Amino acid sequence: MAAEPLITISDVRAAAGRISGVAHRTPVLTSRTLDQLTNAAVLLKGENLQRAGAFKFRGAYNKIATLSDDELARGVCTWSSGNHAQAVALASALVGTKATVLMPEDAPSAKRAATEGYGATVVTYDRYRQDREVLARELAEERGLVPVPAFDDPMVMAGQGTAALELIEDAGAIDTLVVPVSGGGLMAGCGTAARALLPNVELIGVEPAAGDDTARSLAAGERVRIDVPHTIADGQQVEIPGALTFEVNRRQVDEILLVSDEALIATMAFLFERLKIVVEPSGASALAAVLTDPDRFAGRRVGVVLSGGNVDMDRFTSLIGATA
Amino acid sequence: MAAEPLITISDVRAAAGRISGVAHRTPVLTSRTLDQLTNAAVLLKGENLQRAGAFKFRGAYNKIATLSDDELARGVCTWSSGNHAQAVALASALVGTKATVLMPEDAPSAKRAATEGYGATVVTYDRYRQDREVLARELAEERGLVPVPAFDDPMVMAGQGTAALELIEDAGAIDTLVVPVSGGGLMAGCGTAARALLPNVELIGVEPAAGDDTARSLAAGERVRIDVPHTIADGQQVEIPGALTFEVNRRQVDEILLVSDEALIATMAFLFERLKIVVEPSGASALAAVLTDPDRFAGRRVGVVLSGGNVDMDRFTSLIGATA
Repeated sequence: MAAEPLITISDVRAAAGRISGVAHRTPVLTSRTLDQLTNAAVLLKGENLQRAGAFKFRGAYNKIATLSDDELARGVCTWSSGNHAQAVALASALVGTKATVLMPEDAPSAKRAATEGYGATVVTYDRYRQDREVLARELAEERGLVPVPAFDDPMVMAGQGTAALELIEDAGAIDTLVVPVSGGGLMAGCGTAARALLPNVELIGVEPAAGDDTARSLAAGERVRIDVPHTIADGQQVEIPGALTFEVNRRQVDEILLVSDEALIATMAFLFERLKIVVEPSGASALAAVLTDPDRFAGRRVGVVLSGGNVDMDRFTSLIGATA
Repeated sequence: MAAEPLITISDVRAAAGRISGVAHRTPVLTSRTLDQLTNAAVLLKGENLQRAGAFKFRGAYNKIATLSDDELARGVCTWSSGNHAQAVALASALVGTKATVLMPEDAPSAKRAATEGYGATVVTYDRYRQDREVLARELAEERGLVPVPAFDDPMVMAGQGTAALELIEDAGAIDTLVVPVSGGGLMAGCGTAARALLPNVELIGVEPAAGDDTARSLAAGERVRIDVPHTIADGQQVEIPGALTFEVNRRQVDEILLVSDEALIATMAFLFERLKIVVEPSGASALAAVLTDPDRFAGRRVGVVLSGGNVDMDRFTSLIGATA
């Protein structure tokens, strides 16, 4: 007998209620050119336009908004140098708690500044000598802080699922949902929402070719650890799927597709020139998979999550310029 | 006694009905950072995300969709090397008529290709030796084509007004509406819609400092012609306001603000990095005016039209790089 699911559509709907009026209800973008290129109807969920620049705000806010008064008085902590850090910092400011974020000493100063700009305290560590998860646990214990994981948490997963819920509510039924996969929280939440609303929907995750830990894990039937992947998709450089996210994804994901860095760059350029939007490498991965193999999607209504847009102009132009 | 207005809110509402399901209902974007910078609530109408990349599609489609069967059988013509050309080409394809577009021989090949990509026929002329309006009239007469002006036409103005109608419907009441001004069609339509819905709304137009023909014309009480303005805002390089648009705008516009090219570039960079969107120089002008003098807008709910996003990556990076 199968164990109870870790999250259900009810959890996603509850999250939708919590984030309503706080998170942006991001637009579903379409493009005639894109539909012609793919011979499909492609519906882009623009999470690059989300607050703090990525879907991460949904899960972080959903988690933090459900903490007790006592927990809120103590504050939260997390470990990330990326989009989750900014999401936790912003959500904490909005809910009225204090966020402490562990970041490597050599994290880009812009990311540190953005996180501090939302009012969080940044604690740095030496990424070559110290284990951040151990440090985070110590920090949480010492200071009595509540950890807000980046993906491996039911409330975080349920929050991320609101992206798919909104996509389907706003754009109608889809045949296929294509979602970037890193730790797997977005895939788990969006897959849960989509499958509940549309039992026959096909669920596809996308990883960078160099960072195929979820693809390998699904093939192996258990979580597989890989080396830190070398890819421009800095939002997808995880070594192993989450324990909880993997439990959800193994039950419902139909396929993982892999994309090259070159395809990510071409997709970022396409989105800039044709859709007039800025998407970071990992944020472009789901659409890159569709553009890499359009025949796979022909004739279908395809929902695609553009998961984030946090790439500064210098990096954007140097990535694009490298292949121009 | 005042003459009848050239367009009313009824015309804008009729246009909204015509473009419904055809034009994108573009999102209203907001940013906490932007609100903090300005000490205002800024509501950005993202017409850079409109079909064919600019608000121009609204007016072109509204005009072409109301032509008679006989006119549609003959086809339409226009003269533009910019966003209006693409808008007419796309609207014609959707309505099922043939578009002929007069473009200078030296128009950027990308713009010509985009226009032809929508199925239009491009006819070139020598911009140093030939007058395009005379040529367009000849072309229309010779071939029996219906002219679709870029701004100086009630149906075109009414179509552009749907941008403000949607903004107010979606974001609620505003105190001030800030709109880029070139030929004046967007300002005329949006001003008409906003003033009808919100009688006390302040209506502000924005021109590049070098292209202040509408500011001068309003000050003089009659249309003033200036030299072709030297500005990066290629969508706002007109020499004189339209006859009809000026009649509408002189009655209702409260003020014209002027912005420097440097402010346009800084605003484009801000929109890229913080809002994750691509906006062309003229498309950034209304927000640039707000950012140039935020005190002018403090404490208000300010609607701002981002009018277009048609700037290719090379030009974007060279503009931004020039001041970085």
